[in-house]
Amino acid sequence: MEVIVPFSTDRPKSRLSAVLDPDERAAFARAMLRDVLAAVEGAGGDPRVLATGPVDADLGCPVAVDGRPLTDAVNAALDARLGGDGGEGNADGPEPVAVAMADLALATPEALRELFAAGREADIAIAPGRGGGTNAFVASRPEFRVDYHGASYLDHRRIAAEIGASVAVVDSHRLATDVDEPADLAELLIHAEADDAADGGRAARWLRDAGFALDAGNGRVGVERG
Amino acid sequence: MEVIVPFSTDRPKSRLSAVLDPDERAAFARAMLRDVLAAVEGAGGDPRVLATGPVDADLGCPVAVDGRPLTDAVNAALDARLGGDGGEGNADGPEPVAVAMADLALATPEALRELFAAGREADIAIAPGRGGGTNAFVASRPEFRVDYHGASYLDHRRIAAEIGASVAVVDSHRLATDVDEPADLAELLIHAEADDAADGGRAARWLRDAGFALDAGNGRVGVERG
Repeated sequence: MEVIVPFSTDRPKSRLSAVLDPDERAAFARAMLRDVLAAVEGAGGDPRVLATGPVDADLGCPVAVDGRPLTDAVNAALDARLGGDGGEGNADGPEPVAVAMADLALATPEALRELFAAGREADIAIAPGRGGGTNAFVASRPEFRVDYHGASYLDHRRIAAEIGASVAVVDSHRLATDVDEPADLAELLIHAEADDAADGGRAARWLRDAGFALDAGNGRVGVERG
Repeated sequence: MEVIVPFSTDRPKSRLSAVLDPDERAAFARAMLRDVLAAVEGAGGDPRVLATGPVDADLGCPVAVDGRPLTDAVNAALDARLGGDGGEGNADGPEPVAVAMADLALATPEALRELFAAGREADIAIAPGRGGGTNAFVASRPEFRVDYHGASYLDHRRIAAEIGASVAVVDSHRLATDVDEPADLAELLIHAEADDAADGGRAARWLRDAGFALDAGNGRVGVERG
């Protein structure tokens, strides 16, 4: 399955500015992107980066550049793949296509396989993000459109209902965790430590190399930078 | 499967004190508890509340009172069920027992069924919570002990490794979401709205009746109280 991975090269991860400077944010964002691409490949997917600008690195997969806002760029990409004239349709309709965010640093092949499988059964499969976002989805209906503003998970459920598309919701903590804010860094380090993922996990390694460690104080575990 | 649901009757949900007064927190905590008990029953489980004090309500299931801290109370309950003398052992070892927190207001029968199934295959099945907690688990090894301080998910993985127990990790956003902080209220309302759960969801209904609504401003969706 083709998996589009939108990636912002323009001020990525600005909500991490309290703990990372701009160069660090760019490097960390790229490490997360590489983790997502590896997880997609591990799940048997065929990743394609959809970047807002040129990416100065060999990511090991095709990179398309579209400088428009996320919603417009993803809708254009969906249209090119699922649309009536451009889609690779067959008797059963177009091949499903997936979209997965580049900051899903906890994504595993297993979680993505579940998403892909759900997207082969239902017209639309969605992995909601914490806070009402849409962290990943699979679509096979040309009429489906994304709208990433606000509570996009609710909007996408509504859009699917409006076009009469069946919906599967993928209940995954790993896919629900987009790494946006400092508290999300703890989530990444917790699961990297639990899984003892010495060989994978570029983003977790990047954080550790940058001096971040878990801080198990009161309540939920946070991070501290040494 | 027997499912122990620890419930604090003493200052429950203090981290919601910025948005709910003490009586409201008690009522909301009880609504969440009822949702968890219903989800456990829906999953075919046999819920038992383990409360820190008397519960002044008919919860429709047995309630045991143990005023000790959570870790001690749960370890005593595990010991009574899995221990060498008190456990209902058979040739295959003791029956597995589950522990699920009372604030898992997003829990569904489907998510809990997955946990129970994992706990029948592995010695220990854990559903980690966001922030490194242990929101629910199934154990069938008498040597397993809980320690809810700090990053308990990591501690429980370590304890399982120390006793040579096989571990299954259940990747569920619904089970990872314990409702502790104001931001978690949004999560509850988002999924209640998405699923249009008119008949279930006491906790979400309680929040709506108390005037809470989703606030889709910038970034992650929050709540506002009208």
